[in-house]
Amino acid sequence: MKGLVLEADWKPREGYTLTEFERVTGKAVTGSSVWKNPRLRLRDVPEAPVGPRDVRLRPRACGICGSDVHFYETDPDGYMLYPGLTKFPVIIGHEFSGEIVEVGKEVRDLRVGDMVTAEEMIWCGECTPCRNGYPNQCLRLEEIGFTTHGAQAESLVIGAKYCWKINELADVYGDVDRAYEAGALCEPTSVSYNAMFSRAGGFKPGGYVTVFGTGPIGFAAIALARAAGAGRVVAFEVSPVRQELARKVGADFVYSPADLERQGLRPRDVIMEVTRGEGADMHVEAAGAPPRTIPEMEETLAVGGKIVMIGRASDRVPMYLEHFQTHAGQVFGAQGHSGYGNFPSVIRLMAARRIDMTQIITSRFPLDRAVEAVQKAIRREDGKIMVRS
Amino acid sequence: MKGLVLEADWKPREGYTLTEFERVTGKAVTGSSVWKNPRLRLRDVPEAPVGPRDVRLRPRACGICGSDVHFYETDPDGYMLYPGLTKFPVIIGHEFSGEIVEVGKEVRDLRVGDMVTAEEMIWCGECTPCRNGYPNQCLRLEEIGFTTHGAQAESLVIGAKYCWKINELADVYGDVDRAYEAGALCEPTSVSYNAMFSRAGGFKPGGYVTVFGTGPIGFAAIALARAAGAGRVVAFEVSPVRQELARKVGADFVYSPADLERQGLRPRDVIMEVTRGEGADMHVEAAGAPPRTIPEMEETLAVGGKIVMIGRASDRVPMYLEHFQTHAGQVFGAQGHSGYGNFPSVIRLMAARRIDMTQIITSRFPLDRAVEAVQKAIRREDGKIMVRS
Amino acid sequence: MKGLVLEADWKPREGYTLTEFERVTGKAVTGSSVWKNPRLRLRDVPEAPVGPRDVRLRPRACGICGSDVHFYETDPDGYMLYPGLTKFPVIIGHEFSGEIVEVGKEVRDLRVGDMVTAEEMIWCGECTPCRNGYPNQCLRLEEIGFTTHGAQAESLVIGAKYCWKINELADVYGDVDRAYEAGALCEPTSVSYNAMFSRAGGFKPGGYVTVFGTGPIGFAAIALARAAGAGRVVAFEVSPVRQELARKVGADFVYSPADLERQGLRPRDVIMEVTRGEGADMHVEAAGAPPRTIPEMEETLAVGGKIVMIGRASDRVPMYLEHFQTHAGQVFGAQGHSGYGNFPSVIRLMAARRIDMTQIITSRFPLDRAVEAVQKAIRREDGKIMVRS
Amino acid sequence: MKGLVLEADWKPREGYTLTEFERVTGKAVTGSSVWKNPRLRLRDVPEAPVGPRDVRLRPRACGICGSDVHFYETDPDGYMLYPGLTKFPVIIGHEFSGEIVEVGKEVRDLRVGDMVTAEEMIWCGECTPCRNGYPNQCLRLEEIGFTTHGAQAESLVIGAKYCWKINELADVYGDVDRAYEAGALCEPTSVSYNAMFSRAGGFKPGGYVTVFGTGPIGFAAIALARAAGAGRVVAFEVSPVRQELARKVGADFVYSPADLERQGLRPRDVIMEVTRGEGADMHVEAAGAPPRTIPEMEETLAVGGKIVMIGRASDRVPMYLEHFQTHAGQVFGAQGHSGYGNFPSVIRLMAARRIDMTQIITSRFPLDRAVEAVQKAIRREDGKIMVRS
Repeated sequence: MKGLVLEADWKPREGYTLTEFERVTGKAVTGSSVWKNPRLRLRDVPEAPVGPRDVRLRPRACGICGSDVHFYETDPDGYMLYPGLTKFPVIIGHEFSGEIVEVGKEVRDLRVGDMVTAEEMIWCGECTPCRNGYPNQCLRLEEIGFTTHGAQAESLVIGAKYCWKINELADVYGDVDRAYEAGALCEPTSVSYNAMFSRAGGFKPGGYVTVFGTGPIGFAAIALARAAGAGRVVAFEVSPVRQELARKVGADFVYSPADLERQGLRPRDVIMEVTRGEGADMHVEAAGAPPRTIPEMEETLAVGGKIVMIGRASDRVPMYLEHFQTHAGQVFGAQGHSGYGNFPSVIRLMAARRIDMTQIITSRFPLDRAVEAVQKAIRREDGKIMVRS
Repeated sequence: MKGLVLEADWKPREGYTLTEFERVTGKAVTGSSVWKNPRLRLRDVPEAPVGPRDVRLRPRACGICGSDVHFYETDPDGYMLYPGLTKFPVIIGHEFSGEIVEVGKEVRDLRVGDMVTAEEMIWCGECTPCRNGYPNQCLRLEEIGFTTHGAQAESLVIGAKYCWKINELADVYGDVDRAYEAGALCEPTSVSYNAMFSRAGGFKPGGYVTVFGTGPIGFAAIALARAAGAGRVVAFEVSPVRQELARKVGADFVYSPADLERQGLRPRDVIMEVTRGEGADMHVEAAGAPPRTIPEMEETLAVGGKIVMIGRASDRVPMYLEHFQTHAGQVFGAQGHSGYGNFPSVIRLMAARRIDMTQIITSRFPLDRAVEAVQKAIRREDGKIMVRS
Repeated sequence: MKGLVLEADWKPREGYTLTEFERVTGKAVTGSSVWKNPRLRLRDVPEAPVGPRDVRLRPRACGICGSDVHFYETDPDGYMLYPGLTKFPVIIGHEFSGEIVEVGKEVRDLRVGDMVTAEEMIWCGECTPCRNGYPNQCLRLEEIGFTTHGAQAESLVIGAKYCWKINELADVYGDVDRAYEAGALCEPTSVSYNAMFSRAGGFKPGGYVTVFGTGPIGFAAIALARAAGAGRVVAFEVSPVRQELARKVGADFVYSPADLERQGLRPRDVIMEVTRGEGADMHVEAAGAPPRTIPEMEETLAVGGKIVMIGRASDRVPMYLEHFQTHAGQVFGAQGHSGYGNFPSVIRLMAARRIDMTQIITSRFPLDRAVEAVQKAIRREDGKIMVRS
Repeated sequence: MKGLVLEADWKPREGYTLTEFERVTGKAVTGSSVWKNPRLRLRDVPEAPVGPRDVRLRPRACGICGSDVHFYETDPDGYMLYPGLTKFPVIIGHEFSGEIVEVGKEVRDLRVGDMVTAEEMIWCGECTPCRNGYPNQCLRLEEIGFTTHGAQAESLVIGAKYCWKINELADVYGDVDRAYEAGALCEPTSVSYNAMFSRAGGFKPGGYVTVFGTGPIGFAAIALARAAGAGRVVAFEVSPVRQELARKVGADFVYSPADLERQGLRPRDVIMEVTRGEGADMHVEAAGAPPRTIPEMEETLAVGGKIVMIGRASDRVPMYLEHFQTHAGQVFGAQGHSGYGNFPSVIRLMAARRIDMTQIITSRFPLDRAVEAVQKAIRREDGKIMVRS
């Protein structure tokens, strides 16, 4: 079968000492310090066998994610930009949906022909965090499209327990193709859902919500905040294309920090105005730029307000904890999308048309042109680029 | 000034022993056992003085509530139907909004001309439940329109701390009159909000919600469930007029238990169908008929599901607690609307047009015809009847 | 190897219709309607093989549970009393600890020689409730000692993910035997822990707690309430032996409902006295007699109080939900012990000597005399009877 | 009557611009920028009248707090060190208990002769945060001993609603004097209780807890953690006297960061060892040194762990939010002690002997020697210094 394979050279940077784990497993914990000269090409890969609790699916839609882009982009020394856990060569693609074409013999809830989306985090279900209810903190995590083969391919084998049916989306959209696209967006949407509702406990209806950064995680945060009854949703984003999409998915107010700066303003100024001086009940960091965004959030915390950290960044953030004391504020860190009913809840919201994430798709490519899709993503002009099969 | 006064005779039923509290205060704890021959008429009442922390407002809209109707209706022995705390004569009316016309000298946050709605529960702020954060369980509660003069009048004096500004609703609706009507509906809407979100902790977006009984509390529960991202909202109601209104405010499915019965079905059957076999994440009892509604809810609890009890009833309910054990279920009792940001959150939801409760208003009367308004309410053909000034 | 096998005849009662599930699986959902003439004897059973993710352990301590007794006791028609899921013949015994003697080849966290206790609920980890974080509501549950072989035996094979290490208890008690006994009590203690803390959210330190019924679940509830900072712990129990044990594990007050009745009192009277008129913040039902216990709890709910239902009963309970409304009260149903850090938390509490459940052990038998142990349990004179190997 | 009066000169520092609020009210928001040359002496002050909802009490015990010390200590320019809200001259003293000697005519729950402790935060009960359930975020806060007269005096008038009865402590301790001392320690203990349990939601029994800094807030945190069932309580403190007291009130492990440093270790090292590699479930910052303590906490967060910020500091803290994402961690800011049942819960814990804070008292002075008491406090050799009347 064909798959979009990312290859790179295992060349730890000078001064970087490989850990025992890295040496034994061939997985780089800090990818950007180990992998050099990444190449991406569509090539033939043997099909994996289907184990007793697995299914094989034919991917029908698979989004290009920011991490996919960072696999491909390099720094001046030729090292890939993506800083996380990776094992190459690997077929990339982790935001996907597909049709079940084969089921393992112990699989009870899925049938050939079912339409499904799937989690990307292959949590073990057996380590202590998994058993205690923290699958996103699994100690033995594998990640589809990062350490095991992903969905930019003609076929994918995955454990049945990571799949969620989306059959009903076909009725809702009246269109199988769009249903698969919506399905492929369940993964990033569940990342925001998990952070805002499962980890941080949500906000009470009527609460004011801000979202900093509107990539797909930010779009999902906006749509979810709106669907969950936010009194006002305020987004910050520099790209005009994305500002427009932010409005489409539900932002009541959208500002460009750069434009504000030209007017001598900062996000904090408009937040206090829009929230009528009360501040935001929930701030969502989806920009991955906490040294710049968190100070704005701190200054505009409502009494009892929450900051939800989703964007990843390796910078330390100079925080003024006194604000959290005077305002009864709190900070929640979140990663992942598994557990807590996240996926089924997101699917229900789509099925009820409370959210329609397909609005953020701005480009579509066939699998044959998937390399081109990644290259377009590098230009950062899109909402979401979708590879369709 | 004129006010709609309810008078009745203090004639404890035979066999009913007045408590010390009742004798000393002249308040009946169980009104329906004490008050006979209720009469309702518009008459002149002296205006109350404005204390240093009070405001005087001119009521502009005041809804007729089910309890108002139960003040006026009697049983075969001539006793009023309303079973709760009451002290007559009293001007009735507790779902209201108005314009501030005078402010006490220590009032800092309100000005003459402000548009406000107000809580009906005059919590003391000093008893142990109040200090511990349970104003709806205040030990020294007075209730506007029940034990102290209410808003079916030309003037009302109330503590400033029970008022919430609705000025911005005028902009939202582009119409002061409709803004006052919306304001008058904040009280019943906050009862549902308090129960569902402050007491029971809400449901996660995408959750399935049922509402049994669609008086104004039920309508508010529907609108709030929809605004807060319920995956499906299912309502049960016998009156065709109210079924239609239930759809208008946001129910995805509306059933008549009577019609179902004719088809050999029970609510549990349609709930399981509509929830795709998973059951409801939140059931709201707003019918005041728990012996009939709770068994339907028990049988259709989702794993982790909640029952929220708002309707009042003096019957014991034969409950099968085993269901709550097998399903990790829970029951929350709720009364009142004060505290927890309930009123300001409801006002924000109205201001953001996430809910529009004015849709349930089906009749309007001037204060001069307020007796007629109550009489029409007895016919139970309306959504909400509003008295306007 | 030897095992204490329970056999019975599959003879559905007249009028009882077997479900499809029962016919296909040979498991009775309502054991007491299907199994007749239960017999218990120690006999030879072939050893099970150890799968790649399994361990074999040599049981060292295994408690006799109330359900074991109900397997063996019969009604006048000769049917067993236990009403739940069962598949016979089976080796009984589900409250146990043991030494690891063999580990499967994919097991990473356990070694031969480790001391462990284990969950009794074999949750699948793949059904929707499991994936959503509700292992105790697993749709494909197997239960050790109920549907698969248990620990009253010389050997037991179990999935590694159900085991929890108790090595450190040996240091704490300075005695391996007592450590294994403590380990065998983790299962019932985790049932109470799960109900009180994971499901019901606990009580705030200083809260008043009552426990109705002091079998091992009730003892655990008392010890946990005390360890978690209850202001007062009040227990109700008729058996003098158990009253004494209740005091030992931490009850501040212990009453016999029968004695109270002789004095013209009910539990509600002493609860209100002991709680200084404020009522209980948490009531724990561990008696399995809700029609008698719940009314006492309802009348003595503190504002914001909780009822936690652990005891099993098939009776409907006439509940007065109005109490829950006036008192902001809530009811939580709970079953099981898996997930949420229950087991590791209980082990930590034992390791820190915050609780010492071994105090409730009143009799010990070797495996050879295990039938005798069950027969003694029928006399209901003991705290906990332990079979030791 | 005599009172310990703090006087100082209103001399805003060069470059400090007084706010409108400061000019109008005479209250300094940043005391250390406004008040110069603080003087402390016992002198005659007229008795205040008792309003209808007030009580007069005769203080019987009043602790010297760190803020009292910072009122008196000055920087090289002669400005007081205390940076918060202050209005001088004022009688200081805000951790106190006393006997009711007069009650206002509307006071219903207190009688002459009652023993009480009291809150220090005079929350208005009428502003939006107060009404929404956040009394510690009151917009119109007055503070006893900071902006209004405190309890280092022969008499104090206070609103009845800030008082909590401690009569039963006399029985518990069998000694009225010790009961008053315990009563005077309710205020700092409630600060820790509010932060750990009301704001941060506590930890599950068995959880590992660390406390950085053992002034009275830290001692209370240790005692409360122990009482609430912490699996292990680890304290960090440099002073040997306080290390000893930390053990006395319940710390299982006490380390000096300075000693650790001499061994080439950091707190993170011992935390990971003591928590068996799992990290702490709750970290309590009571040192007021977050730039040094928070990094240790971040590195040792258990999965799902919490940081509770109580100590005050004006420094920004370079935080690594990535840790909170990988560990599902959270931060809670807290201040104050009012609401949420904090005071009554603390009193219950004392009455049940679950905590005994009187153990931290190391010096006692009569009111006549109160200046001396403050001077001794400056030497920082004590646990808690108590002024007794």
